[in-house]
Amino acid sequence: MLNEEMYALGSKRSIIRELFEYGKTRAAELGNDKVFDFSIGNPNVPAPPEVTQKLAELIANTEPAALHGYSSAQGDPSVRAAVASSLNKRFGVPYTADNIYMTCGASAALAITIRALCQKGDEFVIFAPYFPEYEVFIKSAGGKPVTVAFDANFDIDFDSLEKAVSKRTKALVVNSPNNPSGAVYGEQTVSRLAEFAKRFEKKHGRPLFIIADEPYRELVYGDEEPPFVPSFYYDTIYCYSFSKSLSLPGERIGYIAVSPKAQCADEIYLAVMGAGRALGYVCAPVLFQRLVAECTDSRPNISAYRENRDLLVGGLTEIGYECAQPKGAFYLFVKSPIGSSVEFAHRAKEYGLILVPADDFAASGWMRIAYCVSKDTILRALPAFRLLFDSCR
Amino acid sequence: MLNEEMYALGSKRSIIRELFEYGKTRAAELGNDKVFDFSIGNPNVPAPPEVTQKLAELIANTEPAALHGYSSAQGDPSVRAAVASSLNKRFGVPYTADNIYMTCGASAALAITIRALCQKGDEFVIFAPYFPEYEVFIKSAGGKPVTVAFDANFDIDFDSLEKAVSKRTKALVVNSPNNPSGAVYGEQTVSRLAEFAKRFEKKHGRPLFIIADEPYRELVYGDEEPPFVPSFYYDTIYCYSFSKSLSLPGERIGYIAVSPKAQCADEIYLAVMGAGRALGYVCAPVLFQRLVAECTDSRPNISAYRENRDLLVGGLTEIGYECAQPKGAFYLFVKSPIGSSVEFAHRAKEYGLILVPADDFAASGWMRIAYCVSKDTILRALPAFRLLFDSCR
Repeated sequence: MLNEEMYALGSKRSIIRELFEYGKTRAAELGNDKVFDFSIGNPNVPAPPEVTQKLAELIANTEPAALHGYSSAQGDPSVRAAVASSLNKRFGVPYTADNIYMTCGASAALAITIRALCQKGDEFVIFAPYFPEYEVFIKSAGGKPVTVAFDANFDIDFDSLEKAVSKRTKALVVNSPNNPSGAVYGEQTVSRLAEFAKRFEKKHGRPLFIIADEPYRELVYGDEEPPFVPSFYYDTIYCYSFSKSLSLPGERIGYIAVSPKAQCADEIYLAVMGAGRALGYVCAPVLFQRLVAECTDSRPNISAYRENRDLLVGGLTEIGYECAQPKGAFYLFVKSPIGSSVEFAHRAKEYGLILVPADDFAASGWMRIAYCVSKDTILRALPAFRLLFDSCR
Repeated sequence: MLNEEMYALGSKRSIIRELFEYGKTRAAELGNDKVFDFSIGNPNVPAPPEVTQKLAELIANTEPAALHGYSSAQGDPSVRAAVASSLNKRFGVPYTADNIYMTCGASAALAITIRALCQKGDEFVIFAPYFPEYEVFIKSAGGKPVTVAFDANFDIDFDSLEKAVSKRTKALVVNSPNNPSGAVYGEQTVSRLAEFAKRFEKKHGRPLFIIADEPYRELVYGDEEPPFVPSFYYDTIYCYSFSKSLSLPGERIGYIAVSPKAQCADEIYLAVMGAGRALGYVCAPVLFQRLVAECTDSRPNISAYRENRDLLVGGLTEIGYECAQPKGAFYLFVKSPIGSSVEFAHRAKEYGLILVPADDFAASGWMRIAYCVSKDTILRALPAFRLLFDSCR
């Protein structure tokens, strides 16, 4: 009577969302101080002050009908120009407003991009550990996800990539800084990836698209900015969200950038517009379009995240947990000390700790800890982490 | 190399959007006073003052991380409770928060609902004249749109409906007050429609869903509230948007309501949640979720629209145009005096008049005039309408 796949998808739900709901319910039952919710990437660090101020100004100073009216489907031209100009300034690239398509966040950007590219049966390579919705978007577009396992450094394993790619491969989906591992691809990795794609292109006479999913670009703890993938390989479709950098995850604002140097750049952009229509997007929320145009240079309070990261990595390592070294984003990837991550997540709940088992990220045996919480939460959670660890011995 | 259907959809674009872009370009070239843009349903009447005030208050008084954080995928529970309570108060229905799914506007609500219901090859009946995106959403979900022609009163032609329905029919999509005809279905029509669906149900042993698309519910010019379809037929999925009632079209905020009395209500709701995920929706924009929860009882400035309607109907009829009598929404449906609506739309442009030919609404020979513009625009446009009419004789 209904679409069975949609019903299954709605019934199963995202494990992250499931735990997020559980955490809210438990906190309401037991009190906020008894529940340590590390489930979701919902920044505890507030939006930069200028964001709140600009928002208030836009509302106070703009005529409401103009402020809240429809924009063009691809976004307001001045907003797209501001985004293009910011990218060009930062990365020395040649985007124009006509290469930018504003979206309802990065998930919409990915769903639209995959839908725009995918012909029935196309393969999309995704790199474990990966955001579970990649699989959802690829299958929903009629494509087939092909997974590449991760290496010990959570870097790309190029031997596995070689084996994963076939003549049906349409695109590689890369996410750096990475959710959930916190890994950041260095210039060597990105450069090798670009070479790989160029070889494919030569062999098959068509591009192997790279979909660069980069909502965490501004959240890095080293001194170097992560390499900008479209500069290494033009047939990269860049998906961005302001959710994490400006702490606006619930407002759903991001964009797709199609490099003007991509093969058939205009055709890709038109397919993106078509996919946006097909999926029911009319335009990205306009108030937040205008806001991000004014705040393209705003940056998150990275020191708060760094402090959380150091506290958590130090504390958990001292207890005896095995952690991936997080260089970016706000996730710590920790090995379950008892093998099964699902069982470990269950046991963690008994100590008020809400951790995401990474099975749906194609990394069984690992846990994701979102540390975009208050420092106080981490300090209070550490003893619970110790009790949990001791209970596993 | 790309998905051909998406490319075609993006290349063709919506005729409304095409004309909307043309209007903006022409106004920039010739000046705003030389272009009379009747293309898009972008309300000129501003949001009610309490909307702007509440928005400012929410920003001033809420901690930013809490204000802008993710909500549950289906929407914040308190927001959903407010929506349910408003529906129950107005229509004497028994919705709870768990029957409401907040969306990025009515288009998302429709795309998600259709995707949730549609199995490959399912037929969806749509009633001409209809919003062109219905076809896009149905085809994109793997379904087949089946059109029912309109009768002289722009009411449902039940003989044609009888012929359009088959054992493959999954749902009827109804839109009242209607875009583009301005028709409002009375109680007799809705009641007959419900009887029709119940007979189908009896015969086929499963519901014939009704998808009620009602963003214009509050925009009616008579004294009676339009009948609430879910009260007549429980297997109705109600799709609503605050775009028109609160003049917030660019903010993308609306909802889906699944009646708790529907057969398999919970399963439908889960399929809706799954479809939301599949299409890349994470949650409806949260600031506007909170806003609409505070403004469920706000109403549009209907007198401004009524004045526009009366001016336009009176003026055009006097010139000699044949108009459908608009009882609701803010569209006037006018017959092309030269037969072809596309040719008439071309000719209208010469007089600065931007009118939408209704071919894509399955109503060749008719034009849609969106009169959600300033009174002044209408007054200044009337002489141009006269010159245009005279040029056609």
